[in-house]
Amino acid sequence: MKDMKTFDDYEVGYDIPALPGMDEAQVQTPCLVLDLDALERNVRKMGDYAAAHGMRHRVHGKMHKSVDVALLQIEMGGACGVCCQKVSEAEVFARGGIRDVMVSNQVRDPLKIDRMAQIPKLGARVLCCVDDLANVEDLSAAARRHGTEIECLVEIDCGAGRCGVTTTPEVVEIAQAIAGSKGLTFAGLQAYQGAMQHLDAYDDRKAKIDVAVAMVKDAVAGLAAVGLECDIVGGGGTGSYYFETTSGVYNELQCGSYAFMDADYGRILDAEGRRIDAGEWENALFILTSVMSHAKADKAIVDAGLKAQSVDSGLPVVFGRDDVTYVKCSDEHGVVMDPGGALKVNDRLRLVPGHCDPTCNVHDWYVGLRKGKVETLWPVSARGKAF
Amino acid sequence: MKDMKTFDDYEVGYDIPALPGMDEAQVQTPCLVLDLDALERNVRKMGDYAAAHGMRHRVHGKMHKSVDVALLQIEMGGACGVCCQKVSEAEVFARGGIRDVMVSNQVRDPLKIDRMAQIPKLGARVLCCVDDLANVEDLSAAARRHGTEIECLVEIDCGAGRCGVTTTPEVVEIAQAIAGSKGLTFAGLQAYQGAMQHLDAYDDRKAKIDVAVAMVKDAVAGLAAVGLECDIVGGGGTGSYYFETTSGVYNELQCGSYAFMDADYGRILDAEGRRIDAGEWENALFILTSVMSHAKADKAIVDAGLKAQSVDSGLPVVFGRDDVTYVKCSDEHGVVMDPGGALKVNDRLRLVPGHCDPTCNVHDWYVGLRKGKVETLWPVSARGKAF
Repeated sequence: MKDMKTFDDYEVGYDIPALPGMDEAQVQTPCLVLDLDALERNVRKMGDYAAAHGMRHRVHGKMHKSVDVALLQIEMGGACGVCCQKVSEAEVFARGGIRDVMVSNQVRDPLKIDRMAQIPKLGARVLCCVDDLANVEDLSAAARRHGTEIECLVEIDCGAGRCGVTTTPEVVEIAQAIAGSKGLTFAGLQAYQGAMQHLDAYDDRKAKIDVAVAMVKDAVAGLAAVGLECDIVGGGGTGSYYFETTSGVYNELQCGSYAFMDADYGRILDAEGRRIDAGEWENALFILTSVMSHAKADKAIVDAGLKAQSVDSGLPVVFGRDDVTYVKCSDEHGVVMDPGGALKVNDRLRLVPGHCDPTCNVHDWYVGLRKGKVETLWPVSARGKAF
Repeated sequence: MKDMKTFDDYEVGYDIPALPGMDEAQVQTPCLVLDLDALERNVRKMGDYAAAHGMRHRVHGKMHKSVDVALLQIEMGGACGVCCQKVSEAEVFARGGIRDVMVSNQVRDPLKIDRMAQIPKLGARVLCCVDDLANVEDLSAAARRHGTEIECLVEIDCGAGRCGVTTTPEVVEIAQAIAGSKGLTFAGLQAYQGAMQHLDAYDDRKAKIDVAVAMVKDAVAGLAAVGLECDIVGGGGTGSYYFETTSGVYNELQCGSYAFMDADYGRILDAEGRRIDAGEWENALFILTSVMSHAKADKAIVDAGLKAQSVDSGLPVVFGRDDVTYVKCSDEHGVVMDPGGALKVNDRLRLVPGHCDPTCNVHDWYVGLRKGKVETLWPVSARGKAF
């Protein structure tokens, strides 16, 4: 279904938080705002890093779920394409003009497989992950049925404890089945260590990735021994990309959160022991919230609660202020301690969300700000696309 | 903006999880499903309770954000109308044909006040809460500007620690200002004790409500002393409605979660020490999820993670099975321990969400099931309406 709406079809304060050209003070809260200057600096910086190290960067679209942000990462950050976690997300990106889309996840449901097999008809290369021999024939049949090609990576569970096989013989067996199936191409390995990204200490993260790298090297050698080469060896997140880059075996990064940052990632430390939000990456994403009640002298109630964010990784942090603290989140309210009585009703605060990915997924729009003005509104194009 | 779409405009597995008439096994996951029989029993039971005790029941629409569920609660459960927490939600309910809509919250932003003042033009009575004298003139000006009437309740903070005043003199002062303002009507008191609803022990909850009731009685007496009567004394949730009902001072309940239930509410105990999901209310809402990977013998990976639910009040519980346990939730995956290897790829599980309100807010649709068939699809009409 094509969405032919223009901004004239939306009502500010009902469908949409703002219109381009507005002052920041007019933006309706709660909503997501992007500091476009900070976002662009993050995107360029990671692009420069990948280019300087000869790595491809396949940006993780599951974080922002936005075609516009993905296109920025490709055009300004040199990204080779996107990865995402669901077939419906991949369809959004392919329909939005992204030409190289990976579902960095297993696809097992028959309808999902069938839909994925049709993505190449939208003009995009499509890739997915496999961790079960029994999946191969279903993928092949769908690709043959639609006359398309699905590129398959074997997923290695290198520590996240979710999907993926754990031994080289399993990798080789599945890769050989893929390589021998019509409609499928063996594309390489998916080896994302998701469980270590948020460990605070650099050396703790490095130790986890060393294990992953050893598993991946063993798998690559096992595949080479049967004549299979890996076009892609993919993985790496915002807390680890330098380890994969210097591993000698990965060739594709899959970072997501670096572009927006969040409070939970911000707390992790770099090699010098500095928080990564203190120089490595800038906070570009904020929940804009307003004070809606201040009936108690030391406590402001703001309008961003659980419907405006996910607190799975901790509470949001008030950006740029150390005089007030967000201490409690209920469905519709946030409690902000204001011991000095600095806040008034309708004052605005920028909150750095605890966890960007599921926070973006509750909002319909990003309000792009530059120099205090609304420059653009971008839909959270794949919001709710969980299929 | 009118939405004139029909089911033909939606693609199953992309926009929508199912179509009416499908078997449950064909529903795309993850999605929200409603056991319509259980929902109707819950709705009738609370309606019968309120009627038997001479209480009005203003159902809390912020929980489900669905016009269809609210209409069911009115038609089948005798509800007098809805309450909700945001002006944009109230607009959705009024546009959907609900004739009595309360914003049980403060409205301070000028655009939000202006939009709220126009809700009566949609054919609905509109009410909101006030906890600050400075709010009264803004509300009055908007009502006068649009030639409408806003009914105002003074909100008492009777223990939740969010919005609301805490003394009878403040209540009386604000109520008198409302009563003396053109375009406004003083409608009564809002006194919802949100902080006690999830205390496990019945007596602990009762002790908290006893405090609230004392505050409310004092305020009602203080208002009577200056000649102001309360048409509405509202409050009460799924964990407390029997206390407000027998208080002798409340006359309107505002229950939400009773209709769907969730794991966090389910754990609280009734007067006999039984969990309330073991007889008082039935689980009617589930996250339907599928196994997407079982590469480890004792662990199934399901497709409902943080994008399909909120875990602020704990993890979801697998419904109707004690052989498997949902133990971990990441962005796109749930880890289900399956020590006996009972699950296969593509098997379905029904999860009782930890917290229904913010879980409903990430989904676009409810799939209504009866006897294994999809009977209806209801949009989560006010999803994302956080303004």
